[in-house]
Amino acid sequence: MNTSALRTLSYGLYIVSSRSGEKFNGQIANTIFQVTSDPLRIVASINKENLTHAYIEESGVFTVSVLAADAPMTLIGTFGFKSGRDIDKFSSVSYRTEGTGCPVILEHTLAFLDVTVTDTIDVGTHTLFVGEVTDADVLAEGDPMTYAYYHQVKGGKTPAKAATFLQEDAGRTERKEKDTAAQQRYVCNVCGYIYDPATGDPDEGVPAGTPFEELPETWVCPVCGASKEEFDKV
Amino acid sequence: MNTSALRTLSYGLYIVSSRSGEKFNGQIANTIFQVTSDPLRIVASINKENLTHAYIEESGVFTVSVLAADAPMTLIGTFGFKSGRDIDKFSSVSYRTEGTGCPVILEHTLAFLDVTVTDTIDVGTHTLFVGEVTDADVLAEGDPMTYAYYHQVKGGKTPAKAATFLQEDAGRTERKEKDTAAQQRYVCNVCGYIYDPATGDPDEGVPAGTPFEELPETWVCPVCGASKEEFDKV
Repeated sequence: MNTSALRTLSYGLYIVSSRSGEKFNGQIANTIFQVTSDPLRIVASINKENLTHAYIEESGVFTVSVLAADAPMTLIGTFGFKSGRDIDKFSSVSYRTEGTGCPVILEHTLAFLDVTVTDTIDVGTHTLFVGEVTDADVLAEGDPMTYAYYHQVKGGKTPAKAATFLQEDAGRTERKEKDTAAQQRYVCNVCGYIYDPATGDPDEGVPAGTPFEELPETWVCPVCGASKEEFDKV
Repeated sequence: MNTSALRTLSYGLYIVSSRSGEKFNGQIANTIFQVTSDPLRIVASINKENLTHAYIEESGVFTVSVLAADAPMTLIGTFGFKSGRDIDKFSSVSYRTEGTGCPVILEHTLAFLDVTVTDTIDVGTHTLFVGEVTDADVLAEGDPMTYAYYHQVKGGKTPAKAATFLQEDAGRTERKEKDTAAQQRYVCNVCGYIYDPATGDPDEGVPAGTPFEELPETWVCPVCGASKEEFDKV
């Protein structure tokens, strides 16, 4: 079996958010689709270990924020590579609550869906939450962020708990290369992001050709926000 | 509720095929995603009225053929707008059978998945088939056909039985416009495809600017293969 075949499936990129009472949490998810149009239902696959999973199980409601292609890696890092058990993800973004009481991200978001869970299917490491869309609206015009765009253009990684994680993803960050000092790439030990001097970090004004050593000490991983000390040579 | 929000969800485009004994059938589907990586499982949403649904229920197995962006509208038309109750869809394409005995399309296909159903979830008009991927391979390099590309670049329509069909889709083909004879657009009553003289049918060598009346009598709808008689003025 060649599991690379799974990489040809296409996805968008979303933030799924839920609540526990007045506490909010959200996470990046790519595995969401519409299942029926009458009534309007969607399904989402969520890892059982994630805090958002616990909140959805408890409250029976969630929202989907559809990310725009211009969503910065810092937003994806906050919601995709950090845990709501460690930080309040919503302290750093603007949002509003919908009818279900769940929050919708208002930055780099094209549309939202407000969802009430109608079915729960245990599929092993993940749960499929089937839900009825009780409200929805378009918030901005633009192209949606696709999973392919996130990987190819943004250089993004797949978290180990994602539904679409494959073992080869782990192997990718273990590859060793002989680089000269100026070309030396560094890997983030938190999220697997690789800083490549050939690319720099244009989102943060770091031009291509900047060696890792010359990055300012205030520079942080564009995916997960880890500091420079968290990086090792590739 | 603004159901246009649902249009911001991203999908690929696939042919899901199954069998009844030695008889094969397949259909276009966009609602497929990976749900877990260990074991490797996917889910597909299939309309209960479709013949492929009956075959999957009976055999408990199916394949997914991942379409390339260069897949022609005739292939999509055959598998997306015709019924296996009327024609043998596999008589016009090259294919091979996999371990489950189900066929995989060998034209304009980037990869295939061979799947054994492990769970079946009734969600109303559709069934969610959760299945374990027992075999998979990459068949060609290239970009996958996305649902957005199908709509925007190929001018494709959404069949009424698709999981992602919305009532607005029906309204789209009902729009009336005052065109001069040379600009007059014609709609296919089978699949909703609109022939626009401004675009022509480049895939079939019909240049832009060709009025509908001047199309050869052998010309057929590029989506579903219907003849000229099935077309009405828009």
